[in-house]
Amino acid sequence: MYPKSLEQLIDSFRTLPGVGEKTAERYALLITEADPLEVEQFAQALLDVRTKLKHCRICGNLTENDTCEICSDQSRDQGQIFVVQSAKDVIAMERTGEYHGVYHVLNGLISSSKGVLPEDLNIDRLIERAKDAHEVILATSATLDGETTALYLSRLLASRCPDVLVTRIAHGLPSGGMLDYADEMTLMHALTDRRKV
Amino acid sequence: MYPKSLEQLIDSFRTLPGVGEKTAERYALLITEADPLEVEQFAQALLDVRTKLKHCRICGNLTENDTCEICSDQSRDQGQIFVVQSAKDVIAMERTGEYHGVYHVLNGLISSSKGVLPEDLNIDRLIERAKDAHEVILATSATLDGETTALYLSRLLASRCPDVLVTRIAHGLPSGGMLDYADEMTLMHALTDRRKV
Repeated sequence: MYPKSLEQLIDSFRTLPGVGEKTAERYALLITEADPLEVEQFAQALLDVRTKLKHCRICGNLTENDTCEICSDQSRDQGQIFVVQSAKDVIAMERTGEYHGVYHVLNGLISSSKGVLPEDLNIDRLIERAKDAHEVILATSATLDGETTALYLSRLLASRCPDVLVTRIAHGLPSGGMLDYADEMTLMHALTDRRKV
Repeated sequence: MYPKSLEQLIDSFRTLPGVGEKTAERYALLITEADPLEVEQFAQALLDVRTKLKHCRICGNLTENDTCEICSDQSRDQGQIFVVQSAKDVIAMERTGEYHGVYHVLNGLISSSKGVLPEDLNIDRLIERAKDAHEVILATSATLDGETTALYLSRLLASRCPDVLVTRIAHGLPSGGMLDYADEMTLMHALTDRRKV
């Protein structure tokens, strides 16, 4: 019922995660009133992301160059590898400012429900890198798929790179978390992984 | 911290209504994994909406032509004008399939809080059209700005086009609405506008 170009834009917005008909309409109608220059920048940004962005050939992180800034930074410990699901996780960790090693981005998690197999992920390259590293930190999420992937990687690394130290990030009560609101799994982890003060 | 092209896309998504940092990141990261053809269509749709879409020279609705489909449709009653705030409202009303007149899109509402004055809206053209019409239906929302605009228009029409019938859409209990959940204004309207059965 909308003019064709508007319908097309609504359809495009609907491909975004969690965006339904109403939200897509709202976004598209805002574009009809937006500053033309901003809209052009928006369109250009979409194209740029597709053409300029690639995966770092070392760690799989998103970059506009062959290797990402972190892998190119010789002041960082290239022998400590923090393994995450996606580029988003790299940013989250970098924000802490507390980590000075490098990353490895799997670009997904092993998942039986979504049919993602180990060979679909950036794992071969991790094994290669782990041979020259002193520590691999498994930092996939504390979800079913995250734990499955961490378990798979820990076994694979133990057999293929027996000399490297493999660790898993701590699970427990989140900062600001209240004991009586925590679920059983969290409490169990908080108890098991307790440390001497 | 993200590569520049990705940062730019996140910024663009953030200009959309209700989209914060996290959501914009999620949208942008999805684009990095999307089908290149779809992304190109998305970018093209953005540009098309800016270049092809304009306001119908008669009613102010969005269209790719000089006059919109509804104003060009001679089977519709061109003397009955349904006055709404935006193009979205035209679509909502058209979905009912019950209205066979034409529309007038104000492209906003008079608002003291947002500093929108009558001269910022598509009102002059409405007065012109009302002179040849038999009914003007004021269908702005039942909000403060909507009521203000309806009141302003009803007075202006009464003085400038005294022969035209000016009506206001009914206010009352929404379909499926429960009496004990309705607010006072709604109940007051439901009582005042009661009709003989």
